[in-house]
Amino acid sequence: MTELDLISWLRKRLPMKTETVSVGIGDDAAVLAWPGDERLVITTDMLLEGTCFLPEHGWRRIGRKALAVNLSDLAAMAAEPVAAVVSLAIPRTMSLEAVKECYEGMFSLADEFSVAIVGGDTNSWNGPLAINITACGRVNGQGPVLRRGAQAGDWLFVTGRLGGSILGKHLDFVPRIREARRLVQTVRVHAMIDLSDGLARDLHQLCQESQCGAVIYADQVPISAEAKMLQDGRTPLLHALSDGEDFELLFAVSPEDGAKLLRDQPLQDLGTSLYHIGICIRDGIYIRYENGRQESLPPLGYLHEFG
Amino acid sequence: MTELDLISWLRKRLPMKTETVSVGIGDDAAVLAWPGDERLVITTDMLLEGTCFLPEHGWRRIGRKALAVNLSDLAAMAAEPVAAVVSLAIPRTMSLEAVKECYEGMFSLADEFSVAIVGGDTNSWNGPLAINITACGRVNGQGPVLRRGAQAGDWLFVTGRLGGSILGKHLDFVPRIREARRLVQTVRVHAMIDLSDGLARDLHQLCQESQCGAVIYADQVPISAEAKMLQDGRTPLLHALSDGEDFELLFAVSPEDGAKLLRDQPLQDLGTSLYHIGICIRDGIYIRYENGRQESLPPLGYLHEFG
Repeated sequence: MTELDLISWLRKRLPMKTETVSVGIGDDAAVLAWPGDERLVITTDMLLEGTCFLPEHGWRRIGRKALAVNLSDLAAMAAEPVAAVVSLAIPRTMSLEAVKECYEGMFSLADEFSVAIVGGDTNSWNGPLAINITACGRVNGQGPVLRRGAQAGDWLFVTGRLGGSILGKHLDFVPRIREARRLVQTVRVHAMIDLSDGLARDLHQLCQESQCGAVIYADQVPISAEAKMLQDGRTPLLHALSDGEDFELLFAVSPEDGAKLLRDQPLQDLGTSLYHIGICIRDGIYIRYENGRQESLPPLGYLHEFG
Repeated sequence: MTELDLISWLRKRLPMKTETVSVGIGDDAAVLAWPGDERLVITTDMLLEGTCFLPEHGWRRIGRKALAVNLSDLAAMAAEPVAAVVSLAIPRTMSLEAVKECYEGMFSLADEFSVAIVGGDTNSWNGPLAINITACGRVNGQGPVLRRGAQAGDWLFVTGRLGGSILGKHLDFVPRIREARRLVQTVRVHAMIDLSDGLARDLHQLCQESQCGAVIYADQVPISAEAKMLQDGRTPLLHALSDGEDFELLFAVSPEDGAKLLRDQPLQDLGTSLYHIGICIRDGIYIRYENGRQESLPPLGYLHEFG
């Protein structure tokens, strides 16, 4: 089996030309007709066998996840996804069927969010499977929403229950694209980030960029059923604070907009609840318990290490 | 050493905001102010340790090559490079210094061609080094040039001597960005491809897309000094026809434009020669020797295999 078989299958499987896509897969590069007044948002994510996924997760779910993490980044900017390119480093022992399954997982999500897969690069090697996807989105007037922009007094929200994603959500989560678009159409979102490395760590990122602090209300952090199921000596709250790959959105709005969100629940028809988990302050990052005790909240969560 | 050290270095090292770059590295995604009337050209390439490079090639050259192969794809579309995002899968044993060297190699080429590195993804794992770069370029009226568009009667050109790139050029080649832009400003380029997998294989690609054939004049194929140095039983001509990673451009123009190119040598001030190596015909791909003998030219060259 050579890359030509794969590319030939991809060319049959993928729509080659749409209103947006002038040239799709099969040339030296793809060409998109970019809307004149819209900025380009671009993000890239690499998923690695053994670190981000295991073959036993199933190729379809793995492929879907590789695109989903990119769409989650676009959601965090409140961008609308447009197109993506896909690179694979394929172990020489992997079957064409397995590779196709992996792509099918991507395509299912791409269809759901109208993302055109417009090109890529396929390589074989003796290493494990590596998948890199770069996704492009667009923003118009309402966006992009950055990590910086939160201010003391802002209310902090998350879009779903946290923790325990290792039990499945880290593969099957739905990127919060629709939620982000709806939010920026409803209120002024001051700052936003997607939760990939754990609430505490990503909150630190958002606060660092915004040059503010935060207090998280321990009893308001929405804890997933999965976080409660994990019996590994860590409390469900600790899982919710530190587990990676929830892929919910964390964002800051003014108290007025926060009250509006709680009252109107504008994401309800999307099946998504909003949780008011804390506030921004001038300095320091804390967690406050129901009994009034407040302590420092370190950047718990996942970090890549090397060297 | 964690990814945060690396990202902090990257943020200091890279310009964060320019006319084009609204948001650079450090947020969930980058944001580019895309020129209203220009189409977006996007390409991605993955370079793998052991397959595309070896650590002994030197990290700086490896990093440079990872960007250069992408710029070569943009050149093949006659696009002007704008921005790139970089993903790394870093072996846990690799030092921060080595990773920085790798980036410095990219940055040197990025500076030369005004490419903004606007983001990326850094991961550590137990596998070998993998580098994925996605590059964006723009085309206006003069482009893009596709692989399809060559017609029977067209003259075929290449932008440099071929073969033996394994002796160094596969790392240190200069992507033919300037040459491609100059060409489309000078003549009407019917079809173009960059030579990454070997002249014969890439010619097959161009002809397949253009639904035409070709005759290559054996005595007109420019053979590099390196192809002549390789003493492995294959003739220098065979090296020039089948060695991968020359990263020269192969293109087709009308005979009138071809004559103009030979007469005016419009790439001379760029230090680049043009070689008229053959013509397009209706069907079949052949090589013709000086003695008049003509034989079929198979798609010699490199292919990834798996499964």
